[in-house]
Amino acid sequence: MSQIQRTGERLMALGIELPEPPKPVASYVPSVIIGNLCFTSGQLPLKDGVLVAQGAVGDTVSVEDAVAAARQSILNCISVAAAAAGSVDRIKRVVKVLGFVQSDDTFHQQPQVINGASDLLQEIFGDMGRHARSAVGTNALPLDAAVEIECIFELTE
Amino acid sequence: MSQIQRTGERLMALGIELPEPPKPVASYVPSVIIGNLCFTSGQLPLKDGVLVAQGAVGDTVSVEDAVAAARQSILNCISVAAAAAGSVDRIKRVVKVLGFVQSDDTFHQQPQVINGASDLLQEIFGDMGRHARSAVGTNALPLDAAVEIECIFELTE
Amino acid sequence: MSQIQRTGERLMALGIELPEPPKPVASYVPSVIIGNLCFTSGQLPLKDGVLVAQGAVGDTVSVEDAVAAARQSILNCISVAAAAAGSVDRIKRVVKVLGFVQSDDTFHQQPQVINGASDLLQEIFGDMGRHARSAVGTNALPLDAAVEIECIFELTE
Repeated sequence: MSQIQRTGERLMALGIELPEPPKPVASYVPSVIIGNLCFTSGQLPLKDGVLVAQGAVGDTVSVEDAVAAARQSILNCISVAAAAAGSVDRIKRVVKVLGFVQSDDTFHQQPQVINGASDLLQEIFGDMGRHARSAVGTNALPLDAAVEIECIFELTE
Repeated sequence: MSQIQRTGERLMALGIELPEPPKPVASYVPSVIIGNLCFTSGQLPLKDGVLVAQGAVGDTVSVEDAVAAARQSILNCISVAAAAAGSVDRIKRVVKVLGFVQSDDTFHQQPQVINGASDLLQEIFGDMGRHARSAVGTNALPLDAAVEIECIFELTE
Repeated sequence: MSQIQRTGERLMALGIELPEPPKPVASYVPSVIIGNLCFTSGQLPLKDGVLVAQGAVGDTVSVEDAVAAARQSILNCISVAAAAAGSVDRIKRVVKVLGFVQSDDTFHQQPQVINGASDLLQEIFGDMGRHARSAVGTNALPLDAAVEIECIFELTE
């Protein structure tokens, strides 16, 4: 079975249903394809229109809840990329993840939080899910979200 | 009239004069062209050398003033890209915007602020101005600027 | 002597030894090569496994120490790119730097801090080290690091 045909089936095998691509909360588009790259907009951890986690990690949000938020954010990244590409099976590789974690000033486990995204990418895409990544803290995010993640995917031609 | 020839005329029709490309405030260059992509440096809302808005939004800076700052920052992005490309008419498409908003911890309308940039891009470039975007908060920016924006443009060959 | 062969020798002439590529602190890879671009993961100022500077600049960390941290972070970026590319001599050009500075709310000299990275890039790569750049503040970084930097390099074919 080729890599190209695998991701949709892999998602089914994992019991993961891609969410509907969230609508941008302002005047931009969910993702842009240029050449074989797809740049997603920053995705909040919205699930059925509700934030999975709201507030600062280390303050009102636990690491565990933030990990779930990171997982939801990257699912939304995959969803918007798949929608733009026509199919999730056109995602060939994950190139780069940039993850922002709304953090209490004394919270320093941003990598553990963004692992919620990275682990899922490798679960879904295997070796092609191994990506470069930055995880940083921030004092404030849109809608008071706990996490915001943007992603660059490589697509098949 | 081709898209390629349109942007300069569109700016004139809109009564928008591109600012002089601001000088970097440190040891780097305003933008780098690689292949058909132009990566700009983060642009502060400098207008004639003075910041349009200084301080944290939600504290001393109003949303309205921050929107104006985002608009000025993206004008500076366009300006440095046009200078590197030789002409604003070589800008074919806006690919990606990353906007940082200096925010009070309780301010969560970063998308509304960065709309000052996104709305202007679509006003100038039309459909080719539709871009992927992340808008995030931060507790501190260079020179106490309210906003900093970087952008990736696609250029014509 | 061609640019392609120069960087390794230049490092020797400058008395700079590239550090061992730091291991990611979580589930991702140090860098990804796609086409002729190498995207590095965000690098902390780790030297022999210890952070060069910890804490917020403007609070417990001096600008001078933060500059040294930025220098170490970019050395780590070069190191991981060189490891992925097979040789530091395959680095053709520096495209883009994104630098996060853990900052006290009232600290606004992020550009001076990230100059520790930019100046070193130009020292090593000369004109090919001239890059686009954003420098921003943040209230929190992984491991309480003072600085985190990610970089895009262009590689030779």
